[in-house]
Amino acid sequence: MDIKAFLRSIPLSKGLSEDHLKKLAESARDRVYRSGQIIISEKDEIQGFFVLMRGKVKMFKRSIDGKEQILYLLRQGEMFGMCAAFSDSVFPANAMALEETVMLFLPGETIDSLAQDDPRILYNIIFDLSCMLKDSMALVESLSLKEIPQRLATFLLISCSRNESNSRDVLNLPVSQRELAKMIGTSPETLSRTLKMMSVQGIISVEGRTITTLDKDALDDLARN
Amino acid sequence: MDIKAFLRSIPLSKGLSEDHLKKLAESARDRVYRSGQIIISEKDEIQGFFVLMRGKVKMFKRSIDGKEQILYLLRQGEMFGMCAAFSDSVFPANAMALEETVMLFLPGETIDSLAQDDPRILYNIIFDLSCMLKDSMALVESLSLKEIPQRLATFLLISCSRNESNSRDVLNLPVSQRELAKMIGTSPETLSRTLKMMSVQGIISVEGRTITTLDKDALDDLARN
Repeated sequence: MDIKAFLRSIPLSKGLSEDHLKKLAESARDRVYRSGQIIISEKDEIQGFFVLMRGKVKMFKRSIDGKEQILYLLRQGEMFGMCAAFSDSVFPANAMALEETVMLFLPGETIDSLAQDDPRILYNIIFDLSCMLKDSMALVESLSLKEIPQRLATFLLISCSRNESNSRDVLNLPVSQRELAKMIGTSPETLSRTLKMMSVQGIISVEGRTITTLDKDALDDLARN
Repeated sequence: MDIKAFLRSIPLSKGLSEDHLKKLAESARDRVYRSGQIIISEKDEIQGFFVLMRGKVKMFKRSIDGKEQILYLLRQGEMFGMCAAFSDSVFPANAMALEETVMLFLPGETIDSLAQDDPRILYNIIFDLSCMLKDSMALVESLSLKEIPQRLATFLLISCSRNESNSRDVLNLPVSQRELAKMIGTSPETLSRTLKMMSVQGIISVEGRTITTLDKDALDDLARN
């Protein structure tokens, strides 16, 4: 996909003129990362945004004893770096490619120059930051106030609602069960037990990375209670 | 304090012209809340920002069985509502006054009209959202990857570094120990035991809401490990 066509399709560019889109595309630099490669580390300084063009990226923190918590799983067209690019500050987490990944780098100064002309792009950034803040607050709520089965049910419901495939009942996990455990804040063993329990109860069926919802009402109940 | 002078002092207005400051002040509406009063509830729709002018406000989520997690403790001059005001969305948490509190409401349409003229105010909003996102990510890290003594040490270090009083070693807790427990995700009993343990070890001394750091290196070590 060419860069301008890709940029036209993402939320950052919503409402932008053809001329602005062209300038944004001209300033963009693409870069390929292999699976497992670190894109940016905690405390790195950055001068712009990274947009996920193709592949899969996790944002995470790691404790001193190696335990990992995934903060955010980036979907195609989503960005990171907004918080560092516009302050004199540093990036607050780590970002790693989970498969071969293409990122677009957009220099902060290009965004500045477009914004002087039309503030539209700043509204799009505010919208994107707001969504990430809401997701982060939901994660705090989940880790602090919910048990593992509730967290898993909530994750499945949110993922299904964002599913771009035809069916909203069949979910192809975007990551391995090992990575999923790091997202909902548990061990792979506990996740595996919870998936089995929900299968035995007839709520879902699991086949590799494919999870099918069999009883949506029961899943809703589990997420709420 | 008059509204225009107050607005001039807060991060939202950084770099704004006198004319813009005047327009912002004219559109602002102030409202008093008593201690314990809900300012906004989860899923409420809002059409602007709330700025804390005087008092204390907590943003929180509550589980179905009444357990509470504080997401954010608002300091004077800080705002909330940015995430709801600029999307067609709803507020993602609850906000409650912890003492008699004065909030300023700034209509989203005023911000829009100023931004058409000069995008400066949108950068200030992006900066504010970024800070909240970073704090939220740090809270996820703390809840997921840190034990209670580590969380408490981290909280004390951050609070001391933001301390506006003369001494960086003496902290007057902005909230009761009961509320502090809800911030670091533990029970009042565990918090009390942890404070006692740190006192016995000579790291801090506690007198009511006043916590004095006696051994900064030990506190740093505790926060890191």
